[in-house]
Amino acid sequence: MSNPTAAMLVIGDEILSGRTRDSNLHYLAKALTGHGINLREARVIADDPDAIVNAVRELSATYTHVFTSGGIGPTHDDITADNVARALGAPIGVRDDARALLEAHYARTGQKLNEARLRMARIPDGAELIDNPISIAPGFSLKNVHVMAGVPAIFEAMLQGLLPRLTGGAPVLSQSLTVMRPEGDVAAPLRDLAARYPDLSMGSYPFQREGAFGTQLVIRGSDAARLDTAMAELKDLVSE
Amino acid sequence: MSNPTAAMLVIGDEILSGRTRDSNLHYLAKALTGHGINLREARVIADDPDAIVNAVRELSATYTHVFTSGGIGPTHDDITADNVARALGAPIGVRDDARALLEAHYARTGQKLNEARLRMARIPDGAELIDNPISIAPGFSLKNVHVMAGVPAIFEAMLQGLLPRLTGGAPVLSQSLTVMRPEGDVAAPLRDLAARYPDLSMGSYPFQREGAFGTQLVIRGSDAARLDTAMAELKDLVSE
Repeated sequence: MSNPTAAMLVIGDEILSGRTRDSNLHYLAKALTGHGINLREARVIADDPDAIVNAVRELSATYTHVFTSGGIGPTHDDITADNVARALGAPIGVRDDARALLEAHYARTGQKLNEARLRMARIPDGAELIDNPISIAPGFSLKNVHVMAGVPAIFEAMLQGLLPRLTGGAPVLSQSLTVMRPEGDVAAPLRDLAARYPDLSMGSYPFQREGAFGTQLVIRGSDAARLDTAMAELKDLVSE
Repeated sequence: MSNPTAAMLVIGDEILSGRTRDSNLHYLAKALTGHGINLREARVIADDPDAIVNAVRELSATYTHVFTSGGIGPTHDDITADNVARALGAPIGVRDDARALLEAHYARTGQKLNEARLRMARIPDGAELIDNPISIAPGFSLKNVHVMAGVPAIFEAMLQGLLPRLTGGAPVLSQSLTVMRPEGDVAAPLRDLAARYPDLSMGSYPFQREGAFGTQLVIRGSDAARLDTAMAELKDLVSE
């Protein structure tokens, strides 16, 4: 596929301890598929400076885009911005444009822009802000790394603002067929079909419903006509 | 922490395309925390031979344990077993013990042990089988890599059979305190407290409830008395 590629980096001890269930990966995966960006890898790491630096360097060198979630709030364990800057060799400090956003927001809500909150205005030199319509403290894009919040509603809003700025490819289409046969019965025809359509991706997902075994067969690709042809063949193959 | 460390490797195009929402990471994270194994990293990768080999090599060299999910069914995209074997330099083929399990199972259910299903008896030399009480086809442990199914009910059952075989450390305990104050108001006292208890891990998780901002503060560690002391201090600090 010649579509742009991407990786996601989820930053947060709370995911790895089991306290919190991540939902941003699933949201991002669906959004990127629709935008024609090919998500190839995701990583979840702890709030650890070296872990962030190493992952950002490796992923940003490998993929067209890297999307991060988590670690950009006001507390001592919010270390994502500083370590993304360090990974990419950019200076970082409180930036006037981000500070102005926070000043206006806290003036409006009658809260104090204290030292902790001011940390959220730390933005690397050369980064482009990502709008946060919910709690105002912005994310940012530095080179090909897009830094967003971990709170799902904020992550989702930031991504909706960011995506139109990114060049996508052909959206990946999919068609699926549910058969009430166990996966082991349809594996052989599916394998033969996949070998004859190397430009399409075929997967099978077993399930159990009221005690009976079934399989969902999925064909993915960017050419709608090819999908139609392959799906018609698949239906013939497994209709026995 | 001197507890054993671990990484998880989720293998499957369907997670990265957004078709399926992974739930095994969250289940594993909670189970390992309870068992005193410190989950440090998770990765999601595609059904790609080199991606599997590279990730298995890197993670198994870095952590005490690696837990994989996905890619051990009967279809052409189920390539986990062969590539874990390749990563660790172990020969692999249909093994008699695994084949016997499948033969008995399919004889019982009146299904055919066809060529596709026989792929599920491919187990590396030297690996120890992991019991699958649901659909019988086993997982396996090869060196420090534990290979399990992607279907959540099967993954969970396999893990419950596997965990008692693994040496754990002191379970990580946690205490939490919910305050109806925004995160930016409690960040400074939390930071000071965290600096005085370097043996404990402290996190804060903002939320919104009926329009008001609140924060959940969490302290984690393996020494119950230290947790009690730190939590008592935290309550004093944020009760203003």
